[in-house]
Amino acid sequence: MEQIASVKLHGGTHQVWRHKSDLLDCDMEFALFVPQGDGPFRPLYFLSGLTCTWENAATKAGAQQAAAAANMVLIFPDTSPRGDAVANDENYALGQGAGFYMTATQAPWASHYKMDRYITEELPALVASLLPLAEGKAGITGHSMGGHGALTLAMTYPHLFGSVSAFAPIVAPTQVPWGRDIFTAYLGTEEDEWQRYDACHLIATRGWEDDILIDVGSDDPFYAEQLRPELFAEAAKAASVPVTLRYQEGYDHSYYFVTSFIDDHIAWHAARL
Amino acid sequence: MEQIASVKLHGGTHQVWRHKSDLLDCDMEFALFVPQGDGPFRPLYFLSGLTCTWENAATKAGAQQAAAAANMVLIFPDTSPRGDAVANDENYALGQGAGFYMTATQAPWASHYKMDRYITEELPALVASLLPLAEGKAGITGHSMGGHGALTLAMTYPHLFGSVSAFAPIVAPTQVPWGRDIFTAYLGTEEDEWQRYDACHLIATRGWEDDILIDVGSDDPFYAEQLRPELFAEAAKAASVPVTLRYQEGYDHSYYFVTSFIDDHIAWHAARL
Repeated sequence: MEQIASVKLHGGTHQVWRHKSDLLDCDMEFALFVPQGDGPFRPLYFLSGLTCTWENAATKAGAQQAAAAANMVLIFPDTSPRGDAVANDENYALGQGAGFYMTATQAPWASHYKMDRYITEELPALVASLLPLAEGKAGITGHSMGGHGALTLAMTYPHLFGSVSAFAPIVAPTQVPWGRDIFTAYLGTEEDEWQRYDACHLIATRGWEDDILIDVGSDDPFYAEQLRPELFAEAAKAASVPVTLRYQEGYDHSYYFVTSFIDDHIAWHAARL
Repeated sequence: MEQIASVKLHGGTHQVWRHKSDLLDCDMEFALFVPQGDGPFRPLYFLSGLTCTWENAATKAGAQQAAAAANMVLIFPDTSPRGDAVANDENYALGQGAGFYMTATQAPWASHYKMDRYITEELPALVASLLPLAEGKAGITGHSMGGHGALTLAMTYPHLFGSVSAFAPIVAPTQVPWGRDIFTAYLGTEEDEWQRYDACHLIATRGWEDDILIDVGSDDPFYAEQLRPELFAEAAKAASVPVTLRYQEGYDHSYYFVTSFIDDHIAWHAARL
């Protein structure tokens, strides 16, 4: 594991690491924000959306100031396996930059695309080897495809995650184009296999022990066709899981939206971890 | 003038405008942050550094949150004239992205490179046509080459600017490589002509009515050769102008440094305008 950047930020450090991922069989990068002091630090994962790397959120979400105040480590993973040997596609919603936090079963994706296991197995061990982390569970949040990742990973791995929130998440991928086309490619045509990566299905079948915070902009251009957070709110209500779904008037899908509410999310996780 | 983006941010709006600049004889873009409400708003200019457009500071400096709280409009100009008809150079410190906030007198630069006049004449009129601005002077700050711009424009146009601060500014361009090579290209070899764009010369000859805030990172790789802020502190002391020069331990030259201290600068300007 090689540290390729370490830059002081809000009293702590922004760090970028490169490593050979045995699980994904390629070189991967991730970024950290590490507050000042000796720790222990509570970890919060920020999963990014389509086309992103660690860099978008680390440079544009403005999460580090509140994380510094809350003594939380921020972990910014990449969104897919990477490199010339890794399958890709011209569709920005498929292939590199679009791992959808799942384990693909279909060719040519199955050999590298295992982002759910990367986030929950390999990456936590790497981070724990670098930093003094607090006992207990991590928080997880994310934006768009990363909101899908945060919700689905939290509910699938509740022994790892103690708090979950999301910005403009894809919540019903088995029902919307961003999910159906991509799940067909990664998982095949057997739709029963898709459900384990659908947040609406997971909240109904697995539930969640605590409450969930979701922000979405009322002017998000992907709101009606791709995100449909009301489907998640309805499923959560039926499952008796309290969800705070905030429609933020006039906000869009960009990091200008994310940064406007990131402080709320950091405080929300800090109160629950 | 055409609005090419308007995105909600921290209760206000991030706006991007494109216009034909009569002064620079090319199309230009600039960004604004406009707080919520009806105004009037106090204006603060943020001048960016080498290679930047309006976008770097608008997306990475994190200035808008504090500006919203202080009811201040942020104005993010581009750093040079732009376009295929505008002279350029392979040197990143010369030509497009490197206007140095001056009026060039030498070919091929003289026909478009007038960024000092653009910032102090054309742009304020455009902004005033769009927004209800508070009576009185504007604040001005900037980073690196933009710190040079902020200091030199404030002292040259004290009727326009009531507060000035800078992040890692070039303060003595007539004495350092980033200035000498570039000033030769833009202004010719007659060094007396360079002095009007040298902050150390201006503080000695024109002075400044108020105090000045400068932050610089102790790990800034450009500190010793290109920035040399202690030269400005010495010149200001000789001119009896109070300068708060803060050496921020461990910080570098990046926007990670800028965003770590931007709230201080916004508050500092808000207290003085």
